[in-house]
Amino acid sequence: MKKVIILGSTGSIGTQTLDIINENRDQFTVTALSCRSRVDDLIQQIREFSPEAVCVGKEEDAHRVQKLFPKLEVYYGDEGLISLANLDADIVLNALMGISGLAPTYRAIETGKDIALANKETLVAGGALVMNLVKQKKVRLLPVDSEHSAIFQCLEGNQDREIRRILLTASGGPFRNYTLEQLEEVTLDQALNHPKWSMGKKITIDSATMMNKGLEVIEAKWLFDVPTSKIEIHVHPESIVHSMVEFQDTSVLAQMGLPDMRIPISLALGYPKRLPYSGESLNFFDAGKTLHFEKPNPEVFRCIKLAYQAIETGGSYPIVLNGANEELVAMFLQKEIRFLDIQRTIERVLEEHTMATPNSVEEILAIDREARTVARKSALANR
Amino acid sequence: MKKVIILGSTGSIGTQTLDIINENRDQFTVTALSCRSRVDDLIQQIREFSPEAVCVGKEEDAHRVQKLFPKLEVYYGDEGLISLANLDADIVLNALMGISGLAPTYRAIETGKDIALANKETLVAGGALVMNLVKQKKVRLLPVDSEHSAIFQCLEGNQDREIRRILLTASGGPFRNYTLEQLEEVTLDQALNHPKWSMGKKITIDSATMMNKGLEVIEAKWLFDVPTSKIEIHVHPESIVHSMVEFQDTSVLAQMGLPDMRIPISLALGYPKRLPYSGESLNFFDAGKTLHFEKPNPEVFRCIKLAYQAIETGGSYPIVLNGANEELVAMFLQKEIRFLDIQRTIERVLEEHTMATPNSVEEILAIDREARTVARKSALANR
Repeated sequence: MKKVIILGSTGSIGTQTLDIINENRDQFTVTALSCRSRVDDLIQQIREFSPEAVCVGKEEDAHRVQKLFPKLEVYYGDEGLISLANLDADIVLNALMGISGLAPTYRAIETGKDIALANKETLVAGGALVMNLVKQKKVRLLPVDSEHSAIFQCLEGNQDREIRRILLTASGGPFRNYTLEQLEEVTLDQALNHPKWSMGKKITIDSATMMNKGLEVIEAKWLFDVPTSKIEIHVHPESIVHSMVEFQDTSVLAQMGLPDMRIPISLALGYPKRLPYSGESLNFFDAGKTLHFEKPNPEVFRCIKLAYQAIETGGSYPIVLNGANEELVAMFLQKEIRFLDIQRTIERVLEEHTMATPNSVEEILAIDREARTVARKSALANR
Repeated sequence: MKKVIILGSTGSIGTQTLDIINENRDQFTVTALSCRSRVDDLIQQIREFSPEAVCVGKEEDAHRVQKLFPKLEVYYGDEGLISLANLDADIVLNALMGISGLAPTYRAIETGKDIALANKETLVAGGALVMNLVKQKKVRLLPVDSEHSAIFQCLEGNQDREIRRILLTASGGPFRNYTLEQLEEVTLDQALNHPKWSMGKKITIDSATMMNKGLEVIEAKWLFDVPTSKIEIHVHPESIVHSMVEFQDTSVLAQMGLPDMRIPISLALGYPKRLPYSGESLNFFDAGKTLHFEKPNPEVFRCIKLAYQAIETGGSYPIVLNGANEELVAMFLQKEIRFLDIQRTIERVLEEHTMATPNSVEEILAIDREARTVARKSALANR
């Protein structure tokens, strides 16, 4: 029995993870669950999966849950997430949103647990620190993103072989082939309407700006230890090829599937096994009949360019990129700024930033907070 | 240094193998070479690679070569190929054409050498016998076909994982989407004009009839130990995806590349390493920009259907399928019969065949000879 801690169990990844566990009750047991604000959903999950501990966002919600389940360990807030990461378990599936995923991942690795990582920010902001600890503690860091899971699968049989290129595919989002002029006009509703994947709001906007792909380039660099010069983004509107790897003999391996997060989740959860899945096969005479690839345009979708620049400069730049982006996406979701304000503001914030080299999670979080403040001010001043 | 024996060194696969060896002289040495009739080419290769031994088709050619190279061991004929297979070496690359590849492969395995197999007939006719010996002798049987190399690469990191489907891709050949009526009229020149791959004549015709794909289904069944019910042919006119494997979690791995036999040859030769290759990368904004898949039509290209039936019936049927096909393709190349006579005659020959269960290479070769005689007679009687 694998003991699983799920951070962010009421979101899209979290609920699909619990579906998979539910279908494989003989192999998994749930040690802990967490949510930020969907407490009613969490209560339902507690009834179904009987965890030892849970964490919620606010103290008052913790009291409410504790009353319903007197024997349950109930925590709240960021400190509560760290407490969950401390529990005895085999694997932590981290589906938290944003930078708040970093500290619990770090603690889970410190305590020797494998990580199924659906939280990009852990590596975008904490890559060097986290990967050092992963090596030191000899834990597995298993990607849950469909792209990184694809790359991971392509590399499984090729451990000591030279990589020529990683080809990271991108759906292109709802605004593929738009010009900068057209992007000026796009609305929140349009940006939230992703053509292929049903995801949370933050990542859906990141997909529309293509910052999502920029963050994934950074994540891939850390996960697979390749320089960003070997990571290329390929727009692939059908979202069937989830990413590819070219080796030094020019052979390319690709992983494909329907756009269904259950595949990467179940691989990370069941690793090294592949769990059986009753879902339908990808039909190459239907959904997979025609596959296209296009060049991305980093002059229009500048978040791509900014992400490459940030990771190539290194140090605190990726943290600032990510922190500014999180703040600006939240502002866009609140209709405080327009769509293109996101990339324009990040560009300004990065230009004004002075390099720092953080050596702890706390220092990373401090740089992140500062970046958010600067980004918010800059966005409001330039609306 | 890997010591390599190349059977069929003057053909398309053979010369590309020598190109690869030439670029990696620090890793490979050539123990033996063979040709059937291109003796001048072989003489050139002897000068360049200094093998210990060679084999030619005819006795008089052997004498001619021996005079030029007095210290060289020179053999001829089918017995000569067996003598080469007996030599001390690490790997035998078998690029012989047709059933004549079976006996030397068998002897090479008996003497504990790894096999790089570009000769389909070895497994089509001798699958059960050969695979038993491979297991007993614990040698590696490395596929050189682009499709089987692709499947091999997709399976490398997935050794103990359940396969849902093998998706064997096919270019569809020069007559893709033709009706039976249209196939009635096709000429030898049209059949020899393959849209994607430059290969020998026999395999080019097999590609036009799609028997090539039928033989590959049988080969895949033996190489990867999967029932034919799990092997599906997908027509893919671009010949970029060389084959795919779907696992039980519905994840599909695909291997891609330009249509270039150097990739599978160099993987088999260098295994477990991938050798560096200075060739250009597959460009997904050009040759790989759009990828299509189509259903094959086994009612028109009946060789597909006949191959599935032959392997599912088992025993001597695949030997008869292959023997009849070899004879009929030779007749078509001599303009003795028309294109559709190939599939029609094989169908009749299989219908009239009575099951046998051969237990040795000699018995397989006897069934093969009988099938050729029957096929020739039947084809001539029904022109």
